[in-house]
Amino acid sequence: MKKDSLTALLRGYRAGKMSLRQVRDRLAVTPYQQLAESTVDLHRELRTGVPEVVFCERKTDDQLVEVFCALGRAHRFVLGTRLDAAVYARVQRRLPERHRFYERARILCVGNPPRPSRGNVLVLTAGSTDIPVAEEAAVVCELLGNRVERCCDVGVAGIHRLNTVIPKMRRARVIVVVAGMDGALPSVIGGLSRVPVIAVPTSVGYGASFRGIAPLLTMLNACAPGVTVVNIDNGFNAGYIASLINRRC
Amino acid sequence: MKKDSLTALLRGYRAGKMSLRQVRDRLAVTPYQQLAESTVDLHRELRTGVPEVVFCERKTDDQLVEVFCALGRAHRFVLGTRLDAAVYARVQRRLPERHRFYERARILCVGNPPRPSRGNVLVLTAGSTDIPVAEEAAVVCELLGNRVERCCDVGVAGIHRLNTVIPKMRRARVIVVVAGMDGALPSVIGGLSRVPVIAVPTSVGYGASFRGIAPLLTMLNACAPGVTVVNIDNGFNAGYIASLINRRC
Amino acid sequence: MKKDSLTALLRGYRAGKMSLRQVRDRLAVTPYQQLAESTVDLHRELRTGVPEVVFCERKTDDQLVEVFCALGRAHRFVLGTRLDAAVYARVQRRLPERHRFYERARILCVGNPPRPSRGNVLVLTAGSTDIPVAEEAAVVCELLGNRVERCCDVGVAGIHRLNTVIPKMRRARVIVVVAGMDGALPSVIGGLSRVPVIAVPTSVGYGASFRGIAPLLTMLNACAPGVTVVNIDNGFNAGYIASLINRRC
Amino acid sequence: MKKDSLTALLRGYRAGKMSLRQVRDRLAVTPYQQLAESTVDLHRELRTGVPEVVFCERKTDDQLVEVFCALGRAHRFVLGTRLDAAVYARVQRRLPERHRFYERARILCVGNPPRPSRGNVLVLTAGSTDIPVAEEAAVVCELLGNRVERCCDVGVAGIHRLNTVIPKMRRARVIVVVAGMDGALPSVIGGLSRVPVIAVPTSVGYGASFRGIAPLLTMLNACAPGVTVVNIDNGFNAGYIASLINRRC
Amino acid sequence: MKKDSLTALLRGYRAGKMSLRQVRDRLAVTPYQQLAESTVDLHRELRTGVPEVVFCERKTDDQLVEVFCALGRAHRFVLGTRLDAAVYARVQRRLPERHRFYERARILCVGNPPRPSRGNVLVLTAGSTDIPVAEEAAVVCELLGNRVERCCDVGVAGIHRLNTVIPKMRRARVIVVVAGMDGALPSVIGGLSRVPVIAVPTSVGYGASFRGIAPLLTMLNACAPGVTVVNIDNGFNAGYIASLINRRC
Amino acid sequence: MKKDSLTALLRGYRAGKMSLRQVRDRLAVTPYQQLAESTVDLHRELRTGVPEVVFCERKTDDQLVEVFCALGRAHRFVLGTRLDAAVYARVQRRLPERHRFYERARILCVGNPPRPSRGNVLVLTAGSTDIPVAEEAAVVCELLGNRVERCCDVGVAGIHRLNTVIPKMRRARVIVVVAGMDGALPSVIGGLSRVPVIAVPTSVGYGASFRGIAPLLTMLNACAPGVTVVNIDNGFNAGYIASLINRRC
Amino acid sequence: MKKDSLTALLRGYRAGKMSLRQVRDRLAVTPYQQLAESTVDLHRELRTGVPEVVFCERKTDDQLVEVFCALGRAHRFVLGTRLDAAVYARVQRRLPERHRFYERARILCVGNPPRPSRGNVLVLTAGSTDIPVAEEAAVVCELLGNRVERCCDVGVAGIHRLNTVIPKMRRARVIVVVAGMDGALPSVIGGLSRVPVIAVPTSVGYGASFRGIAPLLTMLNACAPGVTVVNIDNGFNAGYIASLINRRC
Amino acid sequence: MKKDSLTALLRGYRAGKMSLRQVRDRLAVTPYQQLAESTVDLHRELRTGVPEVVFCERKTDDQLVEVFCALGRAHRFVLGTRLDAAVYARVQRRLPERHRFYERARILCVGNPPRPSRGNVLVLTAGSTDIPVAEEAAVVCELLGNRVERCCDVGVAGIHRLNTVIPKMRRARVIVVVAGMDGALPSVIGGLSRVPVIAVPTSVGYGASFRGIAPLLTMLNACAPGVTVVNIDNGFNAGYIASLINRRC
Repeated sequence: MKKDSLTALLRGYRAGKMSLRQVRDRLAVTPYQQLAESTVDLHRELRTGVPEVVFCERKTDDQLVEVFCALGRAHRFVLGTRLDAAVYARVQRRLPERHRFYERARILCVGNPPRPSRGNVLVLTAGSTDIPVAEEAAVVCELLGNRVERCCDVGVAGIHRLNTVIPKMRRARVIVVVAGMDGALPSVIGGLSRVPVIAVPTSVGYGASFRGIAPLLTMLNACAPGVTVVNIDNGFNAGYIASLINRRC
Repeated sequence: MKKDSLTALLRGYRAGKMSLRQVRDRLAVTPYQQLAESTVDLHRELRTGVPEVVFCERKTDDQLVEVFCALGRAHRFVLGTRLDAAVYARVQRRLPERHRFYERARILCVGNPPRPSRGNVLVLTAGSTDIPVAEEAAVVCELLGNRVERCCDVGVAGIHRLNTVIPKMRRARVIVVVAGMDGALPSVIGGLSRVPVIAVPTSVGYGASFRGIAPLLTMLNACAPGVTVVNIDNGFNAGYIASLINRRC
Repeated sequence: MKKDSLTALLRGYRAGKMSLRQVRDRLAVTPYQQLAESTVDLHRELRTGVPEVVFCERKTDDQLVEVFCALGRAHRFVLGTRLDAAVYARVQRRLPERHRFYERARILCVGNPPRPSRGNVLVLTAGSTDIPVAEEAAVVCELLGNRVERCCDVGVAGIHRLNTVIPKMRRARVIVVVAGMDGALPSVIGGLSRVPVIAVPTSVGYGASFRGIAPLLTMLNACAPGVTVVNIDNGFNAGYIASLINRRC
Repeated sequence: MKKDSLTALLRGYRAGKMSLRQVRDRLAVTPYQQLAESTVDLHRELRTGVPEVVFCERKTDDQLVEVFCALGRAHRFVLGTRLDAAVYARVQRRLPERHRFYERARILCVGNPPRPSRGNVLVLTAGSTDIPVAEEAAVVCELLGNRVERCCDVGVAGIHRLNTVIPKMRRARVIVVVAGMDGALPSVIGGLSRVPVIAVPTSVGYGASFRGIAPLLTMLNACAPGVTVVNIDNGFNAGYIASLINRRC
Repeated sequence: MKKDSLTALLRGYRAGKMSLRQVRDRLAVTPYQQLAESTVDLHRELRTGVPEVVFCERKTDDQLVEVFCALGRAHRFVLGTRLDAAVYARVQRRLPERHRFYERARILCVGNPPRPSRGNVLVLTAGSTDIPVAEEAAVVCELLGNRVERCCDVGVAGIHRLNTVIPKMRRARVIVVVAGMDGALPSVIGGLSRVPVIAVPTSVGYGASFRGIAPLLTMLNACAPGVTVVNIDNGFNAGYIASLINRRC
Repeated sequence: MKKDSLTALLRGYRAGKMSLRQVRDRLAVTPYQQLAESTVDLHRELRTGVPEVVFCERKTDDQLVEVFCALGRAHRFVLGTRLDAAVYARVQRRLPERHRFYERARILCVGNPPRPSRGNVLVLTAGSTDIPVAEEAAVVCELLGNRVERCCDVGVAGIHRLNTVIPKMRRARVIVVVAGMDGALPSVIGGLSRVPVIAVPTSVGYGASFRGIAPLLTMLNACAPGVTVVNIDNGFNAGYIASLINRRC
Repeated sequence: MKKDSLTALLRGYRAGKMSLRQVRDRLAVTPYQQLAESTVDLHRELRTGVPEVVFCERKTDDQLVEVFCALGRAHRFVLGTRLDAAVYARVQRRLPERHRFYERARILCVGNPPRPSRGNVLVLTAGSTDIPVAEEAAVVCELLGNRVERCCDVGVAGIHRLNTVIPKMRRARVIVVVAGMDGALPSVIGGLSRVPVIAVPTSVGYGASFRGIAPLLTMLNACAPGVTVVNIDNGFNAGYIASLINRRC
Repeated sequence: MKKDSLTALLRGYRAGKMSLRQVRDRLAVTPYQQLAESTVDLHRELRTGVPEVVFCERKTDDQLVEVFCALGRAHRFVLGTRLDAAVYARVQRRLPERHRFYERARILCVGNPPRPSRGNVLVLTAGSTDIPVAEEAAVVCELLGNRVERCCDVGVAGIHRLNTVIPKMRRARVIVVVAGMDGALPSVIGGLSRVPVIAVPTSVGYGASFRGIAPLLTMLNACAPGVTVVNIDNGFNAGYIASLINRRC
């Protein structure tokens, strides 16, 4: 929705030509902007409560700069995921000034995200090689306003390590579990937990993990109820859903 | 084992009422019961807030009767899923008196479930052949104390049918979307929703849906964030997670 | 068919030794040329209405030069697909003079293609990373004489963006939809469209898109009828079929 | 949209109570009807030129009767696919009187379909066991107003049998090729044809055809351009697309 | 052929009791017997320490009777696996008199098996539906001379149930773990155990367990070392290997 | 080729209007017959040396009778494969009188096949459950004029059983090896053999043999050269190829 | 061990020239040589008629040199396959003097191979990118003593190109067909041929050819009998089998 | 936590040396150490008899150094697997002084491993390219205190090479068989052996070995009982299990 039509709309409302309801209805109309090669969703925050998040992989430098500048102007803050450090280094200067890059999580935040204020999301990893994916989930969660507690390398091969985790589980409102190889951790956590468990399979492992298919199937078949699954290595979506759930509370 | 009983145990020991051996034995005490062929989890409600749910498929009649009677005695109510009408007909008389069978959802409820009181879970189906799976989700949700709104046959082939759905979406705190074939509905709902979307792929469809693999993959790859996935045809787990999320609120 | 035998044939016809029909029959005989390592189809245009199109991937530089020169002599124009910019840079000077290289679409056109004159083909992409494949489709379509309208980044995650697309759909005679990840866009377009929809899955996406298998399956299972599918990333074939359909009109 | 409301609408327009635009807008509003378990798309014909087609598999008898009656009232004619003869026998009496059942194609037509009038669609099968799927395509095509020419059992194992086919190909505006096993026929037809080829893989064959995956992959990889693919055994969609293409001409 | 009989043979030759030809023939002597449709391995016990075990599935009644009679004559005892109760009922009378049929494990034992005497093999199941496969493992183990301890329904969804299992694990020399669905139990057991763990995936579960592929992959990818895997539902082989390992001790 | 044109052709030849060569050339033209639902290849024997073979699965009774009668009139003998005993029982009386049904191999032979006269084809099976597929290969081989030697149940689990096989291998000109489960036998035979080995995977086995995929892959990857592979359970093709190879000798 | 040496051995024993132990040792005598990291098969030629062929991929330089020198000493000639040009360049000087490297086919021949003398093997390719695999087949064939005729780029997209091929087919005793993409060529050739057809799938193609799986499946399912299949890109084995078949003639 | 320390704890409590709270805290005491990014299992040796083994792939240099130093302090010796030579070269100086790197097996041993003293483990490979995986198994076995005998390149293509292997098999208490391609060797060994066979599929081979899936399936389906399987290329786990079995003896 372009600026002047918004102005016209609101003027019409003040002048009594439109009811409050009519204005609200109009605000749901064509809320996007046609860029050279992208159609940017400007009302996403209004509609879903979260601004559009840019998937940076395979985008050209120019596409990235164009999108972040357009969205940066329209929103309080904007996130980009899967941004390689090397790409960031190239485009860094052309981005809006207020931004921060989280290298390990490969996340870019343009603008002013809210402070983490809503009660705990717990992010667990089965192994230490699962950490980058877990960081993607955790950073997204924090940038969307949630407090995050992390706990790494507590996979089922040493089940007693869960002792440290259990008190944290009691404090959490949602749990994100990141695991590769056999992907068995979410089943165990699901059986011990009172809150929803979001399982993230990772592509870590020996031959027959098939780049994440093995833990993906394990998680879909988790024998404990309460476990739900996102795509392989998709830490972002896990963090996003955790935030949606937490916000509901 | 609850905290206060642990305290009681240790105090009893210090007071000399129990031997060292007795304390050691009690510390290993098991919140489960060993039946002929099942190990029934009696403390599950304490631990996760929901009593154990029995997966009835492939269980023999005797196993079913034994398990429902044992759990029925220990809990306010107990659920069984995937119970075929034919099996139910055979075991009906040997079950505890207070029970109800939901034929389409293939769910058995023994005991006194809570009344649906917590605000809305919305259950959508893409096609009318997805209804049995959706019913499993909806009935589980209701039996765990949630109000459920249903809306059938609103798949993306006629995207305008979403008009009826949108006001219901605004009232919902969680949305369960059940879809076979292309499994595309959750992507569209996810893009329009402020609340978590739980996607359930079904095994409905032509050849290359491969008994649910096609919609499963679609949902895992949903381009809208906020969509999380459960196993093929697993309405139960979707309803269970929806209830966990709703209870959090 | 070699030049001199063609000459002989036509002379025989003029001299009344052959009927028109006989000449036409002969023209359907052995219409190919044996090069060092290729058997070039010279009558393809006669037979199918479109000259042979060269798949350039994995061909050596010498094979490419040999084929384009041979076909360039025999036809008004010739197309090559999947030509990497680097390969083009190496062989550029050895190609026939009249040619143009479309870098993003990786297409080479040797000779004089027709002007786009037949009414609209609409090419849509779900995301901006799908653009290279879409360009392959669009450029092929244009070089075969069709007018093309493009519309990018209108995937189902923001279904309202379709508002811009709908008027363009009304003008189109065929629609090509290019999508990766969940591949859900063709289902929605198919349900809104009066014309054939050609769906092109792309290999864009997170883990479980499996390099395009996920959107391929989605599209094959599209719940809206009227959607037909080509190979993963095969923009060329989509553009080619769109042209065949449009030419029919 | 029910008939009388349409009448009211148009009367209001003639009486000058509504502008042309208002009428047009109304015609795009909620064009579906909520039945007990289905959401029937009543304006589909208006929107796509073809009335909704009912996928009958796995629907209960009551769902089928309800849907065909509702759609039968609103439309000139309605089609149902994948209707087993046994199911038809059960529901036959409860269906609207004017209907016809095509047993081999498993298609039900309620109402008055148009006469086949538009020029030729050619339907080929590789083997005689592919005929049921081909019949589904052919009958759909005819019921949507197209003349159909059939040619069976002309697979590539006896390539010379194509001699009979070639003159028919010259008359056709679209070609549907149905093949199981190796699925090689569409590649050959595509290389000989000036018109679009719609390939339908079937689940006919020995072990490693994997219920249609083998011919599906063959067709997606057809080395001749101009071949597009639909789902395994999905004769209906092939016939539908052929009709869309033919209608364009 | 045993060593001393070779010596006897060569000595007999040197002593002129046998011709050169006879020795050559005997050197090719076959420790197996050619039946109508089977080649029975008579020296298997000599070679591997265990008599041949007959896989009964898909064998005709006549084949079964012929094989068990031939092997029964040559050995102290013979085992058959995967023998359906219905088949057993048909052939029962034609079998050697001394035999016993284990219906749940679908095992037939002809002859006099040794008494279970070697120290413990522990057989665990994750769920009660895994019991038939576990019984196959346990019965084979017992019939090959091992004492077996069983423990059912102790899957990871209620990890505290392992408390009962741990003391049994301390007594065991090998552990067989049978699990379907997520197949996560062996990973946990492997992390707690000092002895080899043999994991048996079962085909129990919801859609995406794909008839046992999901737990098979989980087990192959078990993050705890010491877990080794056999084929889906192959309780027999698990019991056989457990016996080999136990015999070594 | 229709009868009268054949007459004309031959008369022309007798009258000296055509050379022998011209007649032979003409005989290669349109050699098929259009039946109700089949296009029967009448000159296949001329072209490939073997008459067309009918794949009977999924064909209706009428199709079968029609095809066998048509082909039976035109050829010395005709084969049908995959004919179930039950179907045969139904159509038996409507078939040409001179025919024989091989129940285990599920083969029908109409007419007078040649006597087995060409030197040996050896057909081996790994297990006794592979026999039906092996019989299909063996009977086809014999009906096409080859002498066949069979040897069953000589799989690699008892490698010494090969001793009986080796002399037979020395007599053979081609070896067909039929195996399910691990499919390892062809690798061993290939390493011992001087002649081509045709491997036939069967769908016999436990869970992870995936209905023949496991032995199929084993055979394609056979570490011994000289092993070539046909489709799962496709004994017919193995026998056919063995005959082609043997005929060459 | 050859027959006469066995006779000599036993006679020597009877004559008292050898002890019992010596004979026993000799009877276990090994027709192979243990190198540092390989066990070279020295009697392979005796056993199968062809010397061992070395698969060079992934072998270290030292392994290659060691193996070729050992085999080179024991045989008239030795072949190596899958030898990269770069590896060859490194080891070239350390190889036996008499050798030749075929770069495109990646084959090394050490020693004196026989002259091509046995009648024709025909090697066809569907596309020009299939040539490297076809060369592997052709060079192996020639080095094993067969005359080879090549014909490239005659795939089914231009079926009329087969006109050149047909006379060559009439001269051939075996046909090797190399094809990627849809892999449809062998089906067509099989239907036209009197001799065995060996199909080689290649990993050439767009997305859904899945590195050769698509043509592999096509070929396994070839609707024409007489087609047999080897592993993806395995030109060597195709050439080897062709030679075995041709040698039989 | 060891038994006697629990006794001490409870006695100290009764004696008033510890508060109730302290006991409760100690009862939760964790036999692991929380590092920056790893949770190191310090009691693993106590629990399973073997210290934790570090999977080095994808770990950062800092993670590796931190983990090896922490574990090196707590244990007699520690193993790391999948450590690339290049990574080792970088971190070498920061590791504890007493360590040794096995380059081919990619194993790092920190500290003082036991001497190989327990009787034989036999490690076989089918081909010489399988040696790196076999070395991983063999080195792990030796470092855990077992004597290892190796035997390379004895695959089934030259079955007579097993003659050398058989006496070694008689000496072995466990056999590890490493094989790629067809993975057929374990089936043969299993049929000849009295001891457990651990099969390791490797990712060596042509196209359709699919990076180890083909031999994995072969081994899971081994027709000889007594064969158990580990993950693709997972030599470590094979060696570990072999050691567990051997230790039992």
